[in-house]
Amino acid sequence: MDFKKIWQRRRELTEKCLEEELERGVSLDETLKKSMEYSLMAGGKRLRPVLLMAAADAVGGNGENFLLSAAALEMIHTYSLIHDDLPAMDNDDFRRGKPTNHKVYGEAAAILAGDALLTLAFETLTHENTTPEKIVAVTKEIAHAAGMAGMVGGQVLDIGAENENISLQELKKLHGGKTGALFRASVISGAILADAGENEIAALGAYAENFGLAFQITDDILDVTGSALVIGKPVGSDEKNHKSTYVSLLSEAGARQKADEAIENAINALDMFDDKADFLREAVRFLAGRES
Amino acid sequence: MDFKKIWQRRRELTEKCLEEELERGVSLDETLKKSMEYSLMAGGKRLRPVLLMAAADAVGGNGENFLLSAAALEMIHTYSLIHDDLPAMDNDDFRRGKPTNHKVYGEAAAILAGDALLTLAFETLTHENTTPEKIVAVTKEIAHAAGMAGMVGGQVLDIGAENENISLQELKKLHGGKTGALFRASVISGAILADAGENEIAALGAYAENFGLAFQITDDILDVTGSALVIGKPVGSDEKNHKSTYVSLLSEAGARQKADEAIENAINALDMFDDKADFLREAVRFLAGRES
Repeated sequence: MDFKKIWQRRRELTEKCLEEELERGVSLDETLKKSMEYSLMAGGKRLRPVLLMAAADAVGGNGENFLLSAAALEMIHTYSLIHDDLPAMDNDDFRRGKPTNHKVYGEAAAILAGDALLTLAFETLTHENTTPEKIVAVTKEIAHAAGMAGMVGGQVLDIGAENENISLQELKKLHGGKTGALFRASVISGAILADAGENEIAALGAYAENFGLAFQITDDILDVTGSALVIGKPVGSDEKNHKSTYVSLLSEAGARQKADEAIENAINALDMFDDKADFLREAVRFLAGRES
Repeated sequence: MDFKKIWQRRRELTEKCLEEELERGVSLDETLKKSMEYSLMAGGKRLRPVLLMAAADAVGGNGENFLLSAAALEMIHTYSLIHDDLPAMDNDDFRRGKPTNHKVYGEAAAILAGDALLTLAFETLTHENTTPEKIVAVTKEIAHAAGMAGMVGGQVLDIGAENENISLQELKKLHGGKTGALFRASVISGAILADAGENEIAALGAYAENFGLAFQITDDILDVTGSALVIGKPVGSDEKNHKSTYVSLLSEAGARQKADEAIENAINALDMFDDKADFLREAVRFLAGRES
């Protein structure tokens, strides 16, 4: 298995699908579509789509059959970035090395581009080439993970935690919602689409939770040690924003150890799967060692 | 048929369902849920839910079987109000006689409450007590109407039209998106859920488009002639915001005539239906003669 080659191909397939879905969608206003495209096509790892596809592979399916669901996840992720960057939220001027959506299109347009992307995600899910039963199951999973019980809930906790000292437990809850929930939904959606059994879904859920944890801790470490050029946004932003992180709570060495534990737990969770889960195994190792 | 009594009962059923869905949903943050509830339970006509139910009745079903879809529509409508009221958008301090969401909870929380309501709407649709086929069909209809091709697209046009003189055609497109699309999706969703045929759906679509037009023209007239106490927001806000309206483009008398035409067209569109469509007939008459 050539991990990087598969990732690259699936990233390209996802981007092609995103372009096509945006293209075939009708917009009453052309600038709205451009502003959606600006953020949607700004690069990125396309991690959630790739996770969905890898989970489908792991249970014996072919992940590349489910590009529409993969694209829907990326739309939701992108909308969340646009809204998080807003002046009323994190007030960030740059994202992936480019001016943020509201810096280019204005605040009102950025709010609406995010709203439209979130809505388009759910429309895109309805087009998935599978049974209505599975579309409903995946929509339920993703909507639950993206809302108050997951991503939006986590973002609210994140805003509340600024300038506050929070506990490790609270930090885990915050990131479990803000990032972890959609990772988990990505993996579980891929599994559902590829006809996974309940035990497989439970194992993949455990994988995803540990994956999310390792990913977030690495993110926090990179904010301290990384290069702005590589990660595409200013480093040290957590300290500047007085945010509690795994590094501030555990020290850099403690955070690294915790990340290693999470990587191990993620890989152990995949015990029941054969080499078709190798991409998932490699993904958690790769991302926790990443530089951006 | 006691029109007002049915409306009142269905409004109460919708509100009970909204309360229950919010209650059973898990939120990572309690204030987030409160802020969603604040706007969701702030009253209002519950027009979209009532339209969904009336359309289901019209084609021989029982609208009260589809409260979850009705509630989902109201969640989407409410999120759109929260975002429209934001400082970056219309910057309104009052809505339905109460301080707007961001005046109470702050701007970041209001953006996120809107995001969470939109997401909860799609989760709620997956719980509807019907076949997966119909859930997918209704989700597709509603997502399309709520996004760039409909409500969000119309809001972008609305913001772009401030301080501009726009044509009657552009005004129709703007409101057709901003308000009309979700009305149409409400009616069509009710029809789909109650097993309507294609001809019935087409007729109800024509009804909804004319209904939306009559509703909007009446809104514009009320902004000039209404009482702030009754409509719950300052009158004259369109003129203050330099917005083109049916009144500014057609005069009050011209707008009234246009509304009357739309009412007639809406009622004519229902020709193929028997007295089970009387609620829809009455609704368009009632709303175009309303005072708030």
